[in-house]
Amino acid sequence: MTAGRFIVFEGGEGAGKSTQARLLAEALAARGIEAVQTREPGGTAGAEAIRSLLLSTEGAGWGARAEALLFAAARADHVERLIRPALARGAWVICDRFLDSSRAYQGGGSGLSDADLMTLHRIGSEGLLPDCTVLLELDAVLAAERCAARDQGLADRIGGRDAAYHARVAEAFAGYAAAEPTRFARVPADGTPDVVASRVLGALNRWLPPSC
Amino acid sequence: MTAGRFIVFEGGEGAGKSTQARLLAEALAARGIEAVQTREPGGTAGAEAIRSLLLSTEGAGWGARAEALLFAAARADHVERLIRPALARGAWVICDRFLDSSRAYQGGGSGLSDADLMTLHRIGSEGLLPDCTVLLELDAVLAAERCAARDQGLADRIGGRDAAYHARVAEAFAGYAAAEPTRFARVPADGTPDVVASRVLGALNRWLPPSC
Repeated sequence: MTAGRFIVFEGGEGAGKSTQARLLAEALAARGIEAVQTREPGGTAGAEAIRSLLLSTEGAGWGARAEALLFAAARADHVERLIRPALARGAWVICDRFLDSSRAYQGGGSGLSDADLMTLHRIGSEGLLPDCTVLLELDAVLAAERCAARDQGLADRIGGRDAAYHARVAEAFAGYAAAEPTRFARVPADGTPDVVASRVLGALNRWLPPSC
Repeated sequence: MTAGRFIVFEGGEGAGKSTQARLLAEALAARGIEAVQTREPGGTAGAEAIRSLLLSTEGAGWGARAEALLFAAARADHVERLIRPALARGAWVICDRFLDSSRAYQGGGSGLSDADLMTLHRIGSEGLLPDCTVLLELDAVLAAERCAARDQGLADRIGGRDAAYHARVAEAFAGYAAAEPTRFARVPADGTPDVVASRVLGALNRWLPPSC
């Protein structure tokens, strides 16, 4: 049995996180490694119920503080009920978004400091961090084009997510990666899914068993 | 216009909090003071939706950490959307349970420290505290009897809440009151509702306008 590893894909919209999470889970399964593919917010019954509350467009929506607490609550359930048990039995957990997405999207300008968000993570999830956070990095103009093509209705509803928006998000992620270089692997997200998947496997080489 | 005041009723089950909150709101209204009566968890559309999640008996329930974050999220919405706006326009807010109930019920033995719960309150609600917390204190044996008579089905479902349980909760509240004597008014909760209501008004005398 290999040791369980916790791998997270981060990056802005359109970077290919969910595709790469699936391709990595398939590559691990082909090597005989149990891989649990999951996502945030969500991943457990409780966390998915909180996700529904978060995405609900009824009423006045959520203030920044309540929203950050709801994300932290969903993560706490996900970590306790799915991620930690899977790691404990030796499985790899492949997660689409985690803590750094909260930092990039709920922090910054919303009145909550990055230190506050890290404190919520300590209280909610005992500060669990990924073994490796794969940051998929894509040119902001290309990201905006991919999102516009993919999320026509959504993009209309949530308003302008132009290249400047994508650049701000990318800059936030790049800052976290620079601050914790051993926890992050920065992977260029341009090219076909298979090309990017090869880069991801290369970045994770140090954790893979020798036969891979 | 009088200055708005934030009054919270705390105490164990069966102490008469909701009855006294209603009687105080009526007494204030009779004196021409706008009184907003509310409760936790709940009080706003968002917080009531979280309350439903918290009380849901589907699935595996909630772990202590997720539960504490959900209570803090509900409180954040309640404070931002109802309590602060009401106080800002000069109304009194009369709330059935608030922060100290989280401390008494989510803290202690669940893995979360009192300091963690206070930190969640700082992040979620900017640390808003009541002007006065009326702690209704009832003998534990009497509290157990009242609850058994009132909540037959509920008591069966949530298991034994005997006098020892009520004594533990009462001891936690008494500890908070002892630590912050100027924020708390300890009021004996035995006797008829009108007798207790008179004690409550007496305890709040310093905040009432002279004509009361």
